[in-house]
Amino acid sequence: MSVSFLGGLAVDVHTHVYSNRYITLLQNRTAVPRIVTRGGQDRMLILPGEDTDASTSSGRPIGSEYWDGARKLAFMDGHGIAVSVVSPANPWLDFLPAADAGPAAVDINEDMEALCAGSGGRLYGMGLLPRDPMTAAAELGRIARLPHLRGAAIGTTGAGKGLDDPALDPVWAAAERNGLMLFVHPHYGLGNEVMGGYGHAMALALGFPFETTTAITRLILGGTLDRFPGLKLMVAHAGGVLPYLAGRLDACVAGDAHSPVRLRHPPSSYLRMMHYDAIGYQMPTLSLLIALVGADRLLFGTDYPFFPPHVGNAELDTATWHSPTVHRAILQELEPQTASAILRSNAMNTFGLAVPASA
Amino acid sequence: MSVSFLGGLAVDVHTHVYSNRYITLLQNRTAVPRIVTRGGQDRMLILPGEDTDASTSSGRPIGSEYWDGARKLAFMDGHGIAVSVVSPANPWLDFLPAADAGPAAVDINEDMEALCAGSGGRLYGMGLLPRDPMTAAAELGRIARLPHLRGAAIGTTGAGKGLDDPALDPVWAAAERNGLMLFVHPHYGLGNEVMGGYGHAMALALGFPFETTTAITRLILGGTLDRFPGLKLMVAHAGGVLPYLAGRLDACVAGDAHSPVRLRHPPSSYLRMMHYDAIGYQMPTLSLLIALVGADRLLFGTDYPFFPPHVGNAELDTATWHSPTVHRAILQELEPQTASAILRSNAMNTFGLAVPASA
Repeated sequence: MSVSFLGGLAVDVHTHVYSNRYITLLQNRTAVPRIVTRGGQDRMLILPGEDTDASTSSGRPIGSEYWDGARKLAFMDGHGIAVSVVSPANPWLDFLPAADAGPAAVDINEDMEALCAGSGGRLYGMGLLPRDPMTAAAELGRIARLPHLRGAAIGTTGAGKGLDDPALDPVWAAAERNGLMLFVHPHYGLGNEVMGGYGHAMALALGFPFETTTAITRLILGGTLDRFPGLKLMVAHAGGVLPYLAGRLDACVAGDAHSPVRLRHPPSSYLRMMHYDAIGYQMPTLSLLIALVGADRLLFGTDYPFFPPHVGNAELDTATWHSPTVHRAILQELEPQTASAILRSNAMNTFGLAVPASA
Repeated sequence: MSVSFLGGLAVDVHTHVYSNRYITLLQNRTAVPRIVTRGGQDRMLILPGEDTDASTSSGRPIGSEYWDGARKLAFMDGHGIAVSVVSPANPWLDFLPAADAGPAAVDINEDMEALCAGSGGRLYGMGLLPRDPMTAAAELGRIARLPHLRGAAIGTTGAGKGLDDPALDPVWAAAERNGLMLFVHPHYGLGNEVMGGYGHAMALALGFPFETTTAITRLILGGTLDRFPGLKLMVAHAGGVLPYLAGRLDACVAGDAHSPVRLRHPPSSYLRMMHYDAIGYQMPTLSLLIALVGADRLLFGTDYPFFPPHVGNAELDTATWHSPTVHRAILQELEPQTASAILRSNAMNTFGLAVPASA
């Protein structure tokens, strides 16, 4: 790989893959989430309401860039990414009955381990979890023994009732005990009823961060990090918008004379206990995060293969993608040491990664 | 008034008053919004769902600090505020039938003019508007002829269908033509269904900014500022969270191959055409706003008399309130010229105010 990329080689901590067995699962379904063939093209319908749109532009095209490790590596080579920590994308196994979700998680996490093991040191991975807390806790114990996995993705609803649900305590305990990162990622959107009329842009740009923000706020206000101070969390998309609202949240909790919140510290202080991808699409957002939580908590990410450039499938692997390009450029406005920490060394330290000498 | 306040005297552009006739309106109602007497205390129920809470702590206490000009001035004196641009608080007249809302707006705006006219130059005001667009446009013409009024508050739903509703064009045209500021303020909250369990904190800290953000995004994506480039808008609570998400919104619109959005500029660029109160409760939020839209677009505000200190009614006027104190302290971290622009001169220029020599 060329080393001429601005700022040097990167580690990408937010990049998705659907395993082969997960794809088969989606193809066999008759309701969202599912993969359908329309207009001669496979399309993935995963967002609420996409199932009712029968047009050929419903959902998004899905091709082998979502599951083929070789295409992931081609994208990485084209964007100066030495190593990726790949994670299963939403909606994970949220839609499966409990009896099916446990065995499916085992299969899909084994798929992920195999993909990473065969990547020549370029890929590490996160697993996914079934919703049932005891099964999820057990699966985290299994993930900890898979040599290339470093944690698991988790949706914003937890077992179905939000991340402040006390039933999740065994999940937090297992992640903490095993030193595994939990990657909190949105899927459902918040406020979908007022996001229509402008394509998917509002649901993705606003509804996703709103969902993440609400979930992390509930996790904080419920005292999760008082009970599990060693828990490692990574919050998607620059933390939703909670970093912007942290001071307001403190003021609203402190200002409520009847507040039931009983925390050891102000709510905002728990933000400094978490990690964040640096996917904010603008310098002022990254600057706010650095000021609020510290540069050592921030990790370069791309969100690949979502938000593809507007080219045909044949050109995808050689095209320049917006997210890695803009996020690398933003980092170059920082001091070189800070930029390089966010671009790669924070991820290497946080996830215990080795970057191959050949990269 | 003492001039020893850190950074000098302020102009407060986000401070509320309910006029006498508005209070009477709320007292005579039997559904939210309303004022009730519980546990020997008048309480204001204005948020969705507060009506179903029959406890003595439902809603919030309401006393004469919400309508008495002398108490407003006492608060201002205690916090180094020379001049305030007072505005009617939510939910304005959203709940009235069209036939009642027009005449009520006339009454309440006359109340506001009288309050300001009798304040010795310390108070300027904003009016409120009925929802019907043609009546609202006519009322803006009337407001323009009231010597102490400088604009009007407007909720996030406009005429009921959001701020991108083409039916609102006469309202935007009237505001633009008369050089009046429209102050976009939340009331309904967004995502209330997942904000419960922690008192009002989540609805106020998150749901309010989410609501504002969605409303302003719809206004932008609908092309309002392409059609009315001279429109003066002020967005409450540091712009909701749209400033944090501006780059992401651009990316999501540009990344949607089927986007119906047709704007002259990227969505984020319209943020530089608006004004914002500086009510972000933390320095990193103010820094982001300065970097994104420029310090000349930011105006000191307090949100008085919401978020009162936890003291009895008798001590309210002499107590130190959190919002003005923290927001004044945050400004002191800036260059003195920038701090003083946000603290007062931006407001004087933007609203055409004179600060009395006696202040």
